[in-house]
Amino acid sequence: MDKIKVGILGATGMVGQRFVQLLADHPWFEISALAASERSVGMPYGEACHWVIAEEMPTTVKEIVLQGCKPDLSCRLVFSALPAEVAGPVEEEFATAGYAVSSNASSYRLAPDVPLLVPEVNPDHLALIEIQQRRRGWKGFIVTNPNCSTAQLVLALKPLWDRFGITALSVVTLQALSGAGYPGVPSLDILDNVIPYIAGEEGKVEREPLKLLGQLEGEAIREAEIAISAQCHRVATREGHLEAVSVKLGQEAGYQEVVEALRGFRGPLQGLGLPSAPEHPIVVREEVDRPQPRLDRDEGKGMSVVVGRVRECPVLDYKFILLGHNTIRGAAGAAILNAELLASQGYLDFQEDPEGFRNP
Amino acid sequence: MDKIKVGILGATGMVGQRFVQLLADHPWFEISALAASERSVGMPYGEACHWVIAEEMPTTVKEIVLQGCKPDLSCRLVFSALPAEVAGPVEEEFATAGYAVSSNASSYRLAPDVPLLVPEVNPDHLALIEIQQRRRGWKGFIVTNPNCSTAQLVLALKPLWDRFGITALSVVTLQALSGAGYPGVPSLDILDNVIPYIAGEEGKVEREPLKLLGQLEGEAIREAEIAISAQCHRVATREGHLEAVSVKLGQEAGYQEVVEALRGFRGPLQGLGLPSAPEHPIVVREEVDRPQPRLDRDEGKGMSVVVGRVRECPVLDYKFILLGHNTIRGAAGAAILNAELLASQGYLDFQEDPEGFRNP
Amino acid sequence: MDKIKVGILGATGMVGQRFVQLLADHPWFEISALAASERSVGMPYGEACHWVIAEEMPTTVKEIVLQGCKPDLSCRLVFSALPAEVAGPVEEEFATAGYAVSSNASSYRLAPDVPLLVPEVNPDHLALIEIQQRRRGWKGFIVTNPNCSTAQLVLALKPLWDRFGITALSVVTLQALSGAGYPGVPSLDILDNVIPYIAGEEGKVEREPLKLLGQLEGEAIREAEIAISAQCHRVATREGHLEAVSVKLGQEAGYQEVVEALRGFRGPLQGLGLPSAPEHPIVVREEVDRPQPRLDRDEGKGMSVVVGRVRECPVLDYKFILLGHNTIRGAAGAAILNAELLASQGYLDFQEDPEGFRNP
Amino acid sequence: MDKIKVGILGATGMVGQRFVQLLADHPWFEISALAASERSVGMPYGEACHWVIAEEMPTTVKEIVLQGCKPDLSCRLVFSALPAEVAGPVEEEFATAGYAVSSNASSYRLAPDVPLLVPEVNPDHLALIEIQQRRRGWKGFIVTNPNCSTAQLVLALKPLWDRFGITALSVVTLQALSGAGYPGVPSLDILDNVIPYIAGEEGKVEREPLKLLGQLEGEAIREAEIAISAQCHRVATREGHLEAVSVKLGQEAGYQEVVEALRGFRGPLQGLGLPSAPEHPIVVREEVDRPQPRLDRDEGKGMSVVVGRVRECPVLDYKFILLGHNTIRGAAGAAILNAELLASQGYLDFQEDPEGFRNP
Repeated sequence: MDKIKVGILGATGMVGQRFVQLLADHPWFEISALAASERSVGMPYGEACHWVIAEEMPTTVKEIVLQGCKPDLSCRLVFSALPAEVAGPVEEEFATAGYAVSSNASSYRLAPDVPLLVPEVNPDHLALIEIQQRRRGWKGFIVTNPNCSTAQLVLALKPLWDRFGITALSVVTLQALSGAGYPGVPSLDILDNVIPYIAGEEGKVEREPLKLLGQLEGEAIREAEIAISAQCHRVATREGHLEAVSVKLGQEAGYQEVVEALRGFRGPLQGLGLPSAPEHPIVVREEVDRPQPRLDRDEGKGMSVVVGRVRECPVLDYKFILLGHNTIRGAAGAAILNAELLASQGYLDFQEDPEGFRNP
Repeated sequence: MDKIKVGILGATGMVGQRFVQLLADHPWFEISALAASERSVGMPYGEACHWVIAEEMPTTVKEIVLQGCKPDLSCRLVFSALPAEVAGPVEEEFATAGYAVSSNASSYRLAPDVPLLVPEVNPDHLALIEIQQRRRGWKGFIVTNPNCSTAQLVLALKPLWDRFGITALSVVTLQALSGAGYPGVPSLDILDNVIPYIAGEEGKVEREPLKLLGQLEGEAIREAEIAISAQCHRVATREGHLEAVSVKLGQEAGYQEVVEALRGFRGPLQGLGLPSAPEHPIVVREEVDRPQPRLDRDEGKGMSVVVGRVRECPVLDYKFILLGHNTIRGAAGAAILNAELLASQGYLDFQEDPEGFRNP
Repeated sequence: MDKIKVGILGATGMVGQRFVQLLADHPWFEISALAASERSVGMPYGEACHWVIAEEMPTTVKEIVLQGCKPDLSCRLVFSALPAEVAGPVEEEFATAGYAVSSNASSYRLAPDVPLLVPEVNPDHLALIEIQQRRRGWKGFIVTNPNCSTAQLVLALKPLWDRFGITALSVVTLQALSGAGYPGVPSLDILDNVIPYIAGEEGKVEREPLKLLGQLEGEAIREAEIAISAQCHRVATREGHLEAVSVKLGQEAGYQEVVEALRGFRGPLQGLGLPSAPEHPIVVREEVDRPQPRLDRDEGKGMSVVVGRVRECPVLDYKFILLGHNTIRGAAGAAILNAELLASQGYLDFQEDPEGFRNP
Repeated sequence: MDKIKVGILGATGMVGQRFVQLLADHPWFEISALAASERSVGMPYGEACHWVIAEEMPTTVKEIVLQGCKPDLSCRLVFSALPAEVAGPVEEEFATAGYAVSSNASSYRLAPDVPLLVPEVNPDHLALIEIQQRRRGWKGFIVTNPNCSTAQLVLALKPLWDRFGITALSVVTLQALSGAGYPGVPSLDILDNVIPYIAGEEGKVEREPLKLLGQLEGEAIREAEIAISAQCHRVATREGHLEAVSVKLGQEAGYQEVVEALRGFRGPLQGLGLPSAPEHPIVVREEVDRPQPRLDRDEGKGMSVVVGRVRECPVLDYKFILLGHNTIRGAAGAAILNAELLASQGYLDFQEDPEGFRNP
């Protein structure tokens, strides 16, 4: 089978680099276009990009010449790693022109007809695509993944939500530096320090899970009703957001039931063979001092979340520590898994234009 | 007025060093004895002690020869910075022999007849001293200060407790390395990492505030009834514990009332002239990203706590960020302020023995 | 005596902030003007400046309204903390208009008629001022201080140079983050890392000491002849540049002679009463593992350099470890000490204009 | 071919863990015995060992029961990761009993009849084994690898030594935390700090290269004559020692010649098929700011050293920056490569005893 051609918008940024790294040897997708802001257009990627993630830049992309973020890229799907300020109109242009857009940007996450998607959590929300195309007259479409802290949180909540319901949730995050992009957090601000504030983050964490856990009813999502409180901190770790989570369940549940719900979770993707789907979306550890960012962030190639220290909470019902890889499960890996679900469900089965770019 | 002679038990450890540094120029107290474990006895302090806190070792203590932790020290009061494993029996020996003991150790914190004291919070609990002496037949006595995370927390809670009551409390801590003593946390464990566990800490934070905010009734403390949940983390900061706090109040309270209660708090020490008592026990900052450990830990010479980001909590009632200096307000400074309160209330007005050590 | 009015150019940057902090309570100087780039002009300093150094912003400067870097400031002397790209022409404008300029910028450091000055090292180079004014027709003048790594190095070299001569010098630096200004080094670049390169730095360290240790002959400096090799690294410390230094002396010298030359150095400022001059410009430590940035950078209020581990070098003659506070002895403190020398030598004794700004 | 059975002495320490990780899937060797100090004997490795390196503990070793460091292990070769204090006599016992010992400890490095070996540098020194066995009456033998800083240094020096000779060498190291083992460096000592001292290290770096680059003459090594000066620092990196190196060559050499000598070096192992031998023992980078520990330490699976910033040195002849992975190329990987060379040269071709342990 020919691989599906994909492009990356905002390819030189930190999340863009993660897309490049994760897609370099992807079994289903091949990178056929890299796009960036105007000042890099025309330069080879290897030259224009200040590569900052730990893994080496794949040699296959070094010579790819950067293009502008215009809908003339030779590919069927674009991954968007664009900054929130510019993502909205650019993604709309691509969707209008017939591209599938798998976006990591926040612009469309809360739009009623755009799926905010975590494949293990709400794959049925893909049904919004048809509504979206009908309403907006787009030949293509947009799907989005949640903000990094939400992506890992909602995955851990899913089995509890399904089994017991959740009525309230308190989460305090300790987020890694890579979440702020590059150059991001100045070293003088974070060495021997913690910053108890991340612009916009708490609002996203308090809102996005409601849509993700919501119910598709007719042409709309009825959002979940959960009181959520988030307090977000930046700490001096490279990758891996840690979250201290407490939940109030919708019904009584014993400790073992809760642990088993988490540990036993497999999700609805078993059997689909999605390349980025981890066998264990949730890994539960027994040690008293895990998960830890440096030790656990690469679990499941960065696509599993790790839960530890599950215990009763004297205020709500249960509390636990949660860790996820913020630029993989929380960003690029999330968007790629979304695209894999799209492919497996036939959403990418349209004809490509003989002239080279996509044509639905 | 002659200064009151004081000794320090466990003087070479990290908290012991902080005692030495804070007492070197104290207007009421003078260090007349330093005691440590057997292997250092007989050595000059300057030689035996691997000094690790930022301030220089005071020159006045360098030549003091270390003594054993036996009740033959020439002083009226001893500060105990002993590790929990050995503190209990040693402190008892000193109290039996007639010394006043101001202890930072956990051994006696929850004993019903021993004051667990924060002078701005529960100075009336000093009345337990008489009961303690009567029951135990001690000529001296013990007072204790809470664990570091609790000390700063209960200070911030005090005005809310007094004005509105508190029924539930959720706190997530991001604690500094100095809290683990020296050598403490190995660098390989914490560089690019967070450890979501501190042995014994959560239990202390969930329990100690109940006694501190409790009511003295007859000869006992009736503990406060508050559901408390604590989740404790170690992060790569040198000094200054940060806490993300949410509270459910006992009665309805408007946002401005809450902020004013915190900001307006002066405590019951005004007018006593205690040297270590900060003018503002609680400092409320307006900036969106404060308090931060490195920027705010020295507020009020490390004796003020700093509160920021007060806002409504969707799960409980209000939430805020809290910072305190863990080895000052949370340890040595706390015990010294306790001793100052003891002195100002006449608890140290006993005769010293002409032979050199104290005799009540 | 009335204090001398001074202004600060580039007052909002990291070095500018250090000027503000060090001058806030200066016994000879008072800040009468703060100047910054156009986008901050008209704003109060407290609002325009993102304060990043550890000490609190002095309250006295918060309300000072920022002016442009134009020679209409009401003061006699300006300290320049301007970036190298813009410093040259601006400083010339001020010197032309009659201001004394004490500059931390590199623009004029190597100009033959501009003193590159460390008061303990080459105070006689002030004689260049007259030549400078004559040649350039300036009513005012410029003096400069060396780059941070050079400032501390040349101070430690001075007694060796005077006593034994130096023919070759190898220095490897481990430089603090603050040396790169703010935002400066991204945290993702330096956490768990070292960067073995600082743009332009090695050239400065290999060149500036030659002028500093040079001989004033007639109207010019004859530069010292020393072969210098520098290798510069950025490491994850906040303040305090560490340097591993090896020297080849001009004549044979015994180990004790070398140590005594360093330890006994007092410099030519004794008796001048310069407020920022440390009693001991060089502090020699005996411990096997000192100096260390965090423990020793504040020696002499950041104006002393600390030398340790003096030992024979199998390749050159002697080697030692050197530490200095890069934003104090290496930048703002250096320029202030230069200004104090200027004041004590009468270079600031000109009339001020009754209309408010200086007039030679 | 059956794999050769190997044991690890000191298997629970940091270097021991690295041996375990690197040997878990080794094509020639299989771990048949793990030995540690008395207090761990009898416990399964997975339980006794506080695993601290980044890679996960191989599942295959978790159940192996720890034995004592006595020569009754069922294997032909033992890797020694013992601390220097105990390594000497234990290794002697094993050699006496007929085991091949590949040691990372310093005890025998400078013994005249024991090879101090880097396979790419001095494979001919293996000839000392026969002399060693004859003189000492050992049935087995010991080979050693150099200290971590030396291992990477001597590899980079080798092509220069061969082509041009070296008469003097100055090296300043910036060494990673893992070099101090676990728990090793306390976090309070290194956060926001550098320690300019590592016990014993400078002496090793000044001495070991002389033997490594020495000439086998008859039954002894005539040591190289190079004046070496080392200054060693501990910095806050996890893995990867950085070294700033200057060399004086034995003859004149042009810049391009020097770069080509480094870049072109392949060493004498080509064709032997040693599994751990990197294709490029020395990788030369062109970027102005490389090598960096976090970015380059894994080059060649941690077995290549990376050289950058080659330039002329105003004091000696040439200088460059050098990086190597200290627990792979500098410790466990070095000893494993030594063992591979032993195997390929027939030094491990002796009969194993049917009773289970080795018998030459």
